Amino acid sequence: MCELLGLSANVPTDICFSFTGLVQRGGRTGPHRDGWGISLYEGRGSRSFHDPRPSVASEIAGLIQRYAIKSRIIISHIRLANRGRVCLENTHPFTRELWGCSWTFAHNGQLHGIKKKRLKFYKPIGTTDSEYAFCWMLDRIRAKYPRRPASHKVLWQHIHELAREINKLGVFSFLLSDSYYLYAYCTNNMCWLTRKAPFGKARLIDTGEVVDFSKLTTPRDIVTVITSRPLTDNETWQQMKKGEFIIFENGRRRRY
Amino acid sequence: MCELLGLSANVPTDICFSFTGLVQRGGRTGPHRDGWGISLYEGRGSRSFHDPRPSVASEIAGLIQRYAIKSRIIISHIRLANRGRVCLENTHPFTRELWGCSWTFAHNGQLHGIKKKRLKFYKPIGTTDSEYAFCWMLDRIRAKYPRRPASHKVLWQHIHELAREINKLGVFSFLLSDSYYLYAYCTNNMCWLTRKAPFGKARLIDTGEVVDFSKLTTPRDIVTVITSRPLTDNETWQQMKKGEFIIFENGRRRRY
Repeated sequence: MCELLGLSANVPTDICFSFTGLVQRGGRTGPHRDGWGISLYEGRGSRSFHDPRPSVASEIAGLIQRYAIKSRIIISHIRLANRGRVCLENTHPFTRELWGCSWTFAHNGQLHGIKKKRLKFYKPIGTTDSEYAFCWMLDRIRAKYPRRPASHKVLWQHIHELAREINKLGVFSFLLSDSYYLYAYCTNNMCWLTRKAPFGKARLIDTGEVVDFSKLTTPRDIVTVITSRPLTDNETWQQMKKGEFIIFENGRRRRY
Repeated sequence: MCELLGLSANVPTDICFSFTGLVQRGGRTGPHRDGWGISLYEGRGSRSFHDPRPSVASEIAGLIQRYAIKSRIIISHIRLANRGRVCLENTHPFTRELWGCSWTFAHNGQLHGIKKKRLKFYKPIGTTDSEYAFCWMLDRIRAKYPRRPASHKVLWQHIHELAREINKLGVFSFLLSDSYYLYAYCTNNMCWLTRKAPFGKARLIDTGEVVDFSKLTTPRDIVTVITSRPLTDNETWQQMKKGEFIIFENGRRRRY
């Protein structure tokens, strides 16, 4: 199993605290020794850092922790390879452009037979099921909507349908963003929480580290964290259900 | 004017020495205060680091220098914004996927009327002429060759034709890679040199720093560096001519 970590916030927020817990699972408290990656949006642009090496030993991971790049949408992934060898092109998150937007995707799970689906526009660079599934989803979205549909909800429904279809092939827990929204789909092992005023303290399961968010935030901040397994042991994480699809914008859940 | 820096080598090579000279031009010895970026290939994958802030102050630039990621193809760019505001999505190099390959592109120059050309498949995420030109080139390549042509030379000729066409719109010095080759096109300010055995010492113009490549290389290494202006003052840089298009593979120039 891989570990996913996502963030949606209404102000640019760094993910240092959560990331500190996550990277421990890359080689220390977890078995995810096969690389890690993170994508951070800044306006319409996104930047990604990838390292095929264990995150706990990665200098780039250290940079992310120290440098504290702030973003309103972040997707991160620590990999335990089960399909596709350990190399840069197989390291999540994957990125493609559609409608002039930067889309990023990270996946936890295995899919059986995904590569039988035909791809037209987007082709995988690596050999993972995950990137293939991402290419197929974008292919379908592009085929149905050559331009971004005026209604967000129409797009959300379509992404949900595509997720359900791929989910038939195995485990398809994923985080996806188009630079506007953070989409989370759960087959298993996805949970989330929203931090907002009044902010309190949080304690990391993996290191015991405690942070007092009331000292780092303003009363208006709304920050949602989505992850495979709870990162803190003194907060209430909401477990996502099988087949559940949630859309976050500016830290808030959007209903549709 | 922006500064370009490219590397093509037959062994994974770090670009620390050249990059040390280049980043000085980002805010210290040069006016290129509007961000920088670098793309490094590793196998078929590429990773990019972008920072809209001046490179000389950038912690990520420091990381590149210390971390010494080795690659056989590298494209780097320091930006002096003339079109498009200073932000992440306007920071070179730009990346797109075509034929399951990661293509990266960095450009020095201004183009007039490029945005009148119609785009079909690829859309810019930012607002630069450069990314627009890159999208248009990939559009044309994709339209002509839905699959990678069996003959490399056919592809090279097509890229050359496209470069000539865009060059009519202004200054179009660029570095481009499809993960197999490094392509360099010159309107003005492009030069290159190949280092191979017997290796000697090189001295950076911007810092005076000296490196003895004979201590860092094996006799089989072949490393070509392409840049806007010579980086060292004790080596012979070959100035590219206006309209010249050169293809490098494994550090060697490929004729066609």
